Amino acid sequence: MPLSHRINSAVLNALEIAQAAPAPGKLAEALSYATTPGGARIRPTILLSVAKACGDDQPMLTDAAAAALELIHCASLVHDDLPCFDDAALRRGKPSVHLAYSEPLAVLTGDSLIILAFEVLARAAHHDEGRAAKLVLSLAQRTGMPGGICAGQGWESEAEVDLTAYHRSKTAALFIAATEMGAIAAGHDAESWHDLGALIGEAFQVADDLRDAVLDEDSLGKPVGQDDLHGRPNAVATYGVDGAVSRLKDILAGAIASIPSCPGEAQLAEMVRLQAQAIMPKMPAKYRT
Amino acid sequence: MPLSHRINSAVLNALEIAQAAPAPGKLAEALSYATTPGGARIRPTILLSVAKACGDDQPMLTDAAAAALELIHCASLVHDDLPCFDDAALRRGKPSVHLAYSEPLAVLTGDSLIILAFEVLARAAHHDEGRAAKLVLSLAQRTGMPGGICAGQGWESEAEVDLTAYHRSKTAALFIAATEMGAIAAGHDAESWHDLGALIGEAFQVADDLRDAVLDEDSLGKPVGQDDLHGRPNAVATYGVDGAVSRLKDILAGAIASIPSCPGEAQLAEMVRLQAQAIMPKMPAKYRT
Repeated sequence: MPLSHRINSAVLNALEIAQAAPAPGKLAEALSYATTPGGARIRPTILLSVAKACGDDQPMLTDAAAAALELIHCASLVHDDLPCFDDAALRRGKPSVHLAYSEPLAVLTGDSLIILAFEVLARAAHHDEGRAAKLVLSLAQRTGMPGGICAGQGWESEAEVDLTAYHRSKTAALFIAATEMGAIAAGHDAESWHDLGALIGEAFQVADDLRDAVLDEDSLGKPVGQDDLHGRPNAVATYGVDGAVSRLKDILAGAIASIPSCPGEAQLAEMVRLQAQAIMPKMPAKYRT
Repeated sequence: MPLSHRINSAVLNALEIAQAAPAPGKLAEALSYATTPGGARIRPTILLSVAKACGDDQPMLTDAAAAALELIHCASLVHDDLPCFDDAALRRGKPSVHLAYSEPLAVLTGDSLIILAFEVLARAAHHDEGRAAKLVLSLAQRTGMPGGICAGQGWESEAEVDLTAYHRSKTAALFIAATEMGAIAAGHDAESWHDLGALIGEAFQVADDLRDAVLDEDSLGKPVGQDDLHGRPNAVATYGVDGAVSRLKDILAGAIASIPSCPGEAQLAEMVRLQAQAIMPKMPAKYRT
């Protein structure tokens, strides 16, 4: 089965749990609205790819892990879009959850998706209770405080920011969860898969910075130059455009080199190369050399 | 050790995990603000009492369960107080989290506390992985959708409300979690402890309805007559004051009768009787017969 089918059916199975009658109808509907059809599903794709590289001997547990990670990612988007954060009108081409449903329902949608993520892992625990506990731990650490995406958002309320901690928690955390959880689900050690996730996360951050700096609003689909405007630290300000491009290539090479020895090592390296091509922004003519 | 000491030290141990450096300072501080000194800690007290009645053979796991349940309860208060829900200025005699810190930090505080609850259970899983998985499941089911406190709040956005589902999820859910998780932590079957939690939850609901109907604002510490004002269904409207008082006594008698046979049955019945006295509102003279 293609990875995208596995991910979609795992997410749909999770939603079925949360929407079982009797359930309040609008909140139940908002859970689907926030998670389907979904974006690129990059994080669960990485998770499944790592699990496959490690043998994927408990595929039901792997699927639960992939769904859990994607649910958390979707929850974070719903809360990030709230008026008190980004006040975003659109998400994936449709009105954000608080505009489509209401602000209370958007808060509850995020909360419910976070909780559902952990419920999905608990329900799959009978496949391997030890691995399930490690999956809950990894997901919680990469989502909450002090090292997860909540911490990443929390840093934005600080006058003095620890930039390393900020980037690791804000952007890299769910990529680290992806590689760690893929390994754990397949019975491998999480720790040796940490760096691959961290490097992929860093690559996404640099690619984002590049897009923000060099694309026009039409190509990006949202206002450009936001990092410069808000004085946010970014790779282009630090290294220049050419420097950031070569930094991105270096990080991806490092990511591939960091892949631990495992049965599916070559195939996984190929997946990282493909993801790398997908995230490299199409540079406008004036930047091409 | 008195139960209240066990609960407080379990909550403080959990906070230490979430506040480990490097962490964004304000969010870290808000986590303490939202959870300490705490209210009556009724839910974890019930959880510990049930675990003790069942033998409490894994006290570290029981403590983790008590902390997890209290963290979720505190998270729900922070999100309930948000401007888009109750817009509450005060909580436990001090400014609510969104006023003391900011609305973004209040959303993140709730999110982080929910996630921390599951992390605490995962960290205690090595004491008994099977029980830990069941604890995660019970907590998630009583917190999220379709049967937890998120669902309870979700019903308030519906034009037509399933009243049984509404009350079970809004008020009773975390009491059901308390009795189920206490039993699970001590290696007992969750199912036979469900009714005790549900009945205690119902008793709290009726006691709340009575307080809302018969007390004045000074005694209640918040505006009275809110159920009547908002046309909310409540026990006093259905049974009258005397009827509601005798209904409350019936429910508590039923709760005590529902206690499954276990080593600490008598002591647990005594605890329920004490909680019952504590929640029965002091009736003003005009209602005394």
